[in-house]
Amino acid sequence: MHNPQLNKNGELQHLLTIEGLPKSNIIHILDTASSFVSIGDREVKKVPLMRGKSVFNLFFENSTRTRTTFEIASKRLSADVINLNIAASSSSKGESLLDTIDNLSAMHADMFVVRHAESGAPYLISKHLSDTGQSHVHVVNAGDGRHAHPTQGLLDMYTIRHYKKDFTNLTVAIVGDILHSRVARSDIHALTTLGVPEVRAIGPRTLLPSGLEQMGVRVFTDINKGLKDVDVIIMLRLQNERMSGALLPSAQEFFKSYGLTTERLALAKPDAIVMHPGPMNRGVEIESAVADGKQAVILPQVTFGIAVRMAVMSILAGN
Amino acid sequence: MHNPQLNKNGELQHLLTIEGLPKSNIIHILDTASSFVSIGDREVKKVPLMRGKSVFNLFFENSTRTRTTFEIASKRLSADVINLNIAASSSSKGESLLDTIDNLSAMHADMFVVRHAESGAPYLISKHLSDTGQSHVHVVNAGDGRHAHPTQGLLDMYTIRHYKKDFTNLTVAIVGDILHSRVARSDIHALTTLGVPEVRAIGPRTLLPSGLEQMGVRVFTDINKGLKDVDVIIMLRLQNERMSGALLPSAQEFFKSYGLTTERLALAKPDAIVMHPGPMNRGVEIESAVADGKQAVILPQVTFGIAVRMAVMSILAGN
Amino acid sequence: MHNPQLNKNGELQHLLTIEGLPKSNIIHILDTASSFVSIGDREVKKVPLMRGKSVFNLFFENSTRTRTTFEIASKRLSADVINLNIAASSSSKGESLLDTIDNLSAMHADMFVVRHAESGAPYLISKHLSDTGQSHVHVVNAGDGRHAHPTQGLLDMYTIRHYKKDFTNLTVAIVGDILHSRVARSDIHALTTLGVPEVRAIGPRTLLPSGLEQMGVRVFTDINKGLKDVDVIIMLRLQNERMSGALLPSAQEFFKSYGLTTERLALAKPDAIVMHPGPMNRGVEIESAVADGKQAVILPQVTFGIAVRMAVMSILAGN
Repeated sequence: MHNPQLNKNGELQHLLTIEGLPKSNIIHILDTASSFVSIGDREVKKVPLMRGKSVFNLFFENSTRTRTTFEIASKRLSADVINLNIAASSSSKGESLLDTIDNLSAMHADMFVVRHAESGAPYLISKHLSDTGQSHVHVVNAGDGRHAHPTQGLLDMYTIRHYKKDFTNLTVAIVGDILHSRVARSDIHALTTLGVPEVRAIGPRTLLPSGLEQMGVRVFTDINKGLKDVDVIIMLRLQNERMSGALLPSAQEFFKSYGLTTERLALAKPDAIVMHPGPMNRGVEIESAVADGKQAVILPQVTFGIAVRMAVMSILAGN
Repeated sequence: MHNPQLNKNGELQHLLTIEGLPKSNIIHILDTASSFVSIGDREVKKVPLMRGKSVFNLFFENSTRTRTTFEIASKRLSADVINLNIAASSSSKGESLLDTIDNLSAMHADMFVVRHAESGAPYLISKHLSDTGQSHVHVVNAGDGRHAHPTQGLLDMYTIRHYKKDFTNLTVAIVGDILHSRVARSDIHALTTLGVPEVRAIGPRTLLPSGLEQMGVRVFTDINKGLKDVDVIIMLRLQNERMSGALLPSAQEFFKSYGLTTERLALAKPDAIVMHPGPMNRGVEIESAVADGKQAVILPQVTFGIAVRMAVMSILAGN
Repeated sequence: MHNPQLNKNGELQHLLTIEGLPKSNIIHILDTASSFVSIGDREVKKVPLMRGKSVFNLFFENSTRTRTTFEIASKRLSADVINLNIAASSSSKGESLLDTIDNLSAMHADMFVVRHAESGAPYLISKHLSDTGQSHVHVVNAGDGRHAHPTQGLLDMYTIRHYKKDFTNLTVAIVGDILHSRVARSDIHALTTLGVPEVRAIGPRTLLPSGLEQMGVRVFTDINKGLKDVDVIIMLRLQNERMSGALLPSAQEFFKSYGLTTERLALAKPDAIVMHPGPMNRGVEIESAVADGKQAVILPQVTFGIAVRMAVMSILAGN
């Protein structure tokens, strides 16, 4: 079956999801990203790889943090960036998503970075572009509903590779609200593809989706058992809007049962790393002492995230 | 009488309205735009014509779409663009329009792109700049009240010339809410100046302004008669806020009487083109089959719109 | 005691406040700014001093005007600017100020321009950066609470020096709501440091803070006495939100007692200059005839403000 994010030479045409993305494409992105990591330290943090290209940040759902990372990545590649907060614009004028896309595409867009509350919106856009003969325009999924957040997944893989070198002997635990997390979904697909032998999901039964076992994931509702001897801990953000919901008693309750404390971290391997996609709820899913501790690699994740996004964008623009 | 948008050599100093703009200036803009159309297809879509110039997008009325076209045009000319959503800023602090202009002008602005709900605001600004010895700053009207939307009018002319070559043997119909449309007004002035022998206005009596006949326009309330043998159909957007008003029964009613359907399109010449300034209300003023059909040139209008705005801005900056 | 805004060579590391800033640093900024004033008149208004640097405009409090001046200054220095309106973003997601700073810093930020409603926020940020080994990132205070607005103070000094040459023989009056004004505070520190022999504060008793005399300021509640023979008048903006408060009877009342009219201006020296940080409330703190009159240097203040901000940013980026 044809993978909609690859062109006929197997090169990346869009980045929509890590599910089904061949290992070689993932490795190529990570390798390309390493060459960009050092650019951040240079006097002049720019390369001319996308000079004169027009990148549109289409944020149908507000996310200043993610939008900022793509904006910086674009500018360091010398692209022209246009930020469109679509919630506040044409869609309120009753224009359809695909009419908006056609219009921006007619302005000679080169790339759409799409954030949308609906799962599948970036896929719909890429399909429309291909159906209407506009396949020179590239789509990057910057988070769609509960579905996927592939650049977050890739930067997590970059971070793990940076600290652990080899994926094939690791135990990785993902902790928290797995059910609503596109980050968890992207990470699980990436870890599996890269050959991680044991991926664990830890959380209360109400926040664990069905079907995890079929994806090759070991499920734990007891965090003390789940963290035993792991190499990597990926904490998930507990969404504020869930906290008052029926699925959870309270933020304090959650911290008591699933918060990553210094004591619990001691259950993992001594050199285990702690990751978090941010923004953190200190005292809800993670203790401040852990967030700021020596095993935390949360800020390096951010730094690598810029490099990974530069890699994805420059690879797409080159294909 | 002195035309406030021309300097004493008859060159464009500001673009405020198409009314009274000499034919030679219009032709010069269209000719300059053709040289920019091809830039969109280049690997590096930039020319250095406005490098180091400061363009301020002053949007006193929100319009993401129009703001985006000017932002892209500016960036492709290598200008520095600063977006100011004025509704949300100083004017809420009680500062007057002209104080805001003086302040931005003191920051060495080179060009103001102005969108305002009040008719005449861009003219007021240009007059103030000239009265206070700041005539090196240029003003582009990006839509003022019901008055004018000259760059839309110019891109419409570019589109017609592209497909029809010669203006002097055409019949052009403008359909819909003529009364509230600055696009209609700008188009009528442009078509007349360029020598189009027959311009028609089609709409319900409540949405037709008085004085059309004096402008040389033939008025039709029956769309089936009005579309007969026309070469160009310009559909107007029906503003949401009008739909529930007293002037119109309902959107469905409007579509029944004035919507452009496949059947009605067949009344026009077989090679007639269909235009729309966007964003479209599919099923209100235009049927989807027509909007996506072979005679529609709605997306090329968008493409030409960038080139026309680049032309206007670079001509102004050069004078 | 160590001055947190200077590095160990006494060079500017951050610009947090004018209080305690050595005279030599102030003079260095003003001298550097003069070299930038002429850039505004050039054909290409850009210098490559900050090419490839990433400047983040962190506005925790909305201020389009100040944000615009820093955005223009950054672009004319060829920096990449990212505007973050933080009120509307992560802080609503419950992320702490310092976590936001750490994240942006991990994206290889070079400079934070910070506007915050809380006094001391920029200092807190600079201290955190230094405590966590990130002192290569520079902080510019763009206004914090009632505390300081150092770039406004510096551009006021630039303006006074431009028109009066020598500070050591001047009488300067600051008029209006001294109590709530960070501009007044910054100006008083700057004027004192630069050797102005007489600084006056004029306002109603309810809007005069205690401790002015200890800062070497002469206090007047009668404007007619306070303006007598002054060389420089700095009018302050009366905040809308104060006008309906208990501290003041009404805007009309204020104008009657403290508004700068043509008659009152005549009490000052004949060559006195009139300054205002903007945006002005015409008819509240200043009469229109004065604001637009020959002695007003309010628009030159704006022009010099861009040059002063370019000076501050380029000096910081160079250290």
